[in-house]
Amino acid sequence: MSESKKFILQERDIPTAWYNIIPSMPVKPEPMLHPGTMKPLQPEDLYPIFAEELSRQELNVTDSWIEIPEEVRDMYKIWRPTPLVRARGLEKALDTPARIYFKNESVSPVGSHKLNSAIPQAYFCKKQGITNITTETGAGQWGAAMSLAARHFGLELAVYMVKVSYNQKPYRRSIMQTYGAEVIASPSMSTRAGRKIITDHPNYQGSLGTAISEAVELATSTPNCRYVLGSVLNHVALHQTVIGLEAEKQMAMAGDYPDIVIGCFGGGSNFSGISFPFLRHNFSGERHTRFIAAEPESCPKLTRGKFHYDFGDEAGYTPLIPMLTLGHNFSPANIHAGGLRYHGAGAVVSQLKKDGLIDAVDIPQLETFSAATLFARSEGIIPAPESSHAIAAAIREALRAKEEGTSKVILFNLSGHGLIDMTAYDSYIAGDLTNHTITQEEIDRNTADLPGK
Amino acid sequence: MSESKKFILQERDIPTAWYNIIPSMPVKPEPMLHPGTMKPLQPEDLYPIFAEELSRQELNVTDSWIEIPEEVRDMYKIWRPTPLVRARGLEKALDTPARIYFKNESVSPVGSHKLNSAIPQAYFCKKQGITNITTETGAGQWGAAMSLAARHFGLELAVYMVKVSYNQKPYRRSIMQTYGAEVIASPSMSTRAGRKIITDHPNYQGSLGTAISEAVELATSTPNCRYVLGSVLNHVALHQTVIGLEAEKQMAMAGDYPDIVIGCFGGGSNFSGISFPFLRHNFSGERHTRFIAAEPESCPKLTRGKFHYDFGDEAGYTPLIPMLTLGHNFSPANIHAGGLRYHGAGAVVSQLKKDGLIDAVDIPQLETFSAATLFARSEGIIPAPESSHAIAAAIREALRAKEEGTSKVILFNLSGHGLIDMTAYDSYIAGDLTNHTITQEEIDRNTADLPGK
Repeated sequence: MSESKKFILQERDIPTAWYNIIPSMPVKPEPMLHPGTMKPLQPEDLYPIFAEELSRQELNVTDSWIEIPEEVRDMYKIWRPTPLVRARGLEKALDTPARIYFKNESVSPVGSHKLNSAIPQAYFCKKQGITNITTETGAGQWGAAMSLAARHFGLELAVYMVKVSYNQKPYRRSIMQTYGAEVIASPSMSTRAGRKIITDHPNYQGSLGTAISEAVELATSTPNCRYVLGSVLNHVALHQTVIGLEAEKQMAMAGDYPDIVIGCFGGGSNFSGISFPFLRHNFSGERHTRFIAAEPESCPKLTRGKFHYDFGDEAGYTPLIPMLTLGHNFSPANIHAGGLRYHGAGAVVSQLKKDGLIDAVDIPQLETFSAATLFARSEGIIPAPESSHAIAAAIREALRAKEEGTSKVILFNLSGHGLIDMTAYDSYIAGDLTNHTITQEEIDRNTADLPGK
Repeated sequence: MSESKKFILQERDIPTAWYNIIPSMPVKPEPMLHPGTMKPLQPEDLYPIFAEELSRQELNVTDSWIEIPEEVRDMYKIWRPTPLVRARGLEKALDTPARIYFKNESVSPVGSHKLNSAIPQAYFCKKQGITNITTETGAGQWGAAMSLAARHFGLELAVYMVKVSYNQKPYRRSIMQTYGAEVIASPSMSTRAGRKIITDHPNYQGSLGTAISEAVELATSTPNCRYVLGSVLNHVALHQTVIGLEAEKQMAMAGDYPDIVIGCFGGGSNFSGISFPFLRHNFSGERHTRFIAAEPESCPKLTRGKFHYDFGDEAGYTPLIPMLTLGHNFSPANIHAGGLRYHGAGAVVSQLKKDGLIDAVDIPQLETFSAATLFARSEGIIPAPESSHAIAAAIREALRAKEEGTSKVILFNLSGHGLIDMTAYDSYIAGDLTNHTITQEEIDRNTADLPGK
């Protein structure tokens, strides 16, 4: 163990290849299905939606390492490598024998890890000659990242932002506009999917599932336009592995190796990013690290969802994905961790969970804000409400280590800062926040009628 | 010149001593005066207001280097050293032969350079056994930094926040509260100075000068309480020299040396921080760098102020400082760069300007937002409205270099990010922002009746 607080890499240490976990998985995920033919998806089936290179990455089950283009690494240099931090302040506040580390992805110019995938997605679109792209965003972290990446590569971007966040988080909307993107509150009148849901439910405040439907519809009906997505999919998790690959080098600098790795969980992008590079050493038998995905109590697909084929969006425009799901029509409570309000987990994470290779916990909203406030006061950084789920899970483990008198090494991903989520902290300080559980009956009802086999 | 984008130091490169410029100045500043006796101030005169060690630092004209305590360096490690960045994106956007670098102080957990002085101020208060502290804040950058530092060292903090910012920037208020500070809109009914101005001008939206008066009054009338200030004073500039000392090492890594160094200017903290370490090589005759302080057109103390003794606050509670001033009752326009709305410059910077050792420019608000937007789109980081003054000045110099066909090396300080100032960007995008000039008559009127000799 070193006495340093931060473990700092140089630009030359930015990974040169992304890690694709699929070839090494003991049991590979079931294939995604074409919803029309119900046959396993081929890359060509995805070309109308995604850039071709991204479609190939999505279905690549053979190459463990995929080279990062120089143009992408150059742009990573704006803020990468990110620091690994020993959370000595938090350890002291908890009086725990555990050694807690966090990977600080909040230092990106948009304040989250989302830029790791936004950049290659914009790059591969541009390389193919695509001029316009669409996407969705919940709390706005992904939309802000995509806006910056699109501007850098000279692409026009339209972002469908979940209506509740559009109204609650105007700063994130302004950030996207400052970078030059168009931002539309979803559901909107600009798409068939949006019009239908507005007509059926006039006061509907939107969901990620609906915003995805709108963005996919606009992309597939606009010339030379494609859609980009910030989570759930394999190629997004792939790009995010730069987090774990850097962390691996930094843990070695610290002279430690994690017993437990934790990430918050919405669709899987940051959890996969920090976990997969470490998980490969479990697969090889070298290590026995425990992996914990921390999801909101109000949206517990990993702990309480059904393993089944389901759509990635509300209207059913996407391929069928084998996932742990609460049903694509599930409408999560309006918790402040908007980025975790998604009904399903990606295919790889779902399979890993099914096979007992990763764990999951679901955490009540008040516990996450209590953890966030302790973290802010002991480590100085105000965390995003999403990331606070990882902090809460890390605190649970650190307290367990204290109880058991064992000196565990805990690593979690601080996926973003919360400086643009201060209304959420205001509500917490004012005592206005509540927890949101869902009943088994609600889960059963939403998953009773899932598509496919 | 290196091909890197960022120049990254390790924790061991955090400076071990602050640089005190006063002993090396060709002409030393006039002494500060006790407003009652009109005699040069002694450290003891300051003890009722400031911690004793800070009072001694304030009046230290003999030691060029002052050791940074280990506890302070440990806390600097939360985010320091900060990166030096080659702004290749901005250079390309401007098509300039100039090489532009910026020191990225926005990576601190509160988003600005202010933490560099907040930490030692809290530390020296704590060390003396002080339990309560007060301060003022304009846009909230200093208040946020002080809240974090106070919490770390277990001090109770009350922050008087300029009323217009209290209402316009609720996120910064929430940040201070999340760290555990008490925040009061100024002018308030809690002090004699506040009550007087509310009575005389019921709709007064506050100023830094008034907030300082309130904070000083509360500190001096509360047991075991002292006041801390985020700019203007010598000891604040001293602490901020960590910026320039790191930048010096990083410019060497880049194989370059600045021809021009630029900082935005409110009271002087970040300009002094980046400039003074480089300025010492001008004093010794080794180098001939040009230094430019970039202030708002609406608050032009360096370019148009009067050199005279004046109070640091509106009510006249502080010692008399020899300064370039617009008059301590001057009420600047409500520009979005709230941190630059201050009537005077610190004694050292005022003397340097008087002696022609530094330059200053004043910049219209619209030019700063145009520069900020170009910077956001080319470098990825949305800058604070304050820092945008430095960017605008750097762009002027880069365009001049292009016109002249010379390859200047320009270094500016990015003192903070603007993620919590997005309402300002909204106004700019909507076309609602205007410039604010002031007339010579207004300056003459405000400086007609200055105190002292």
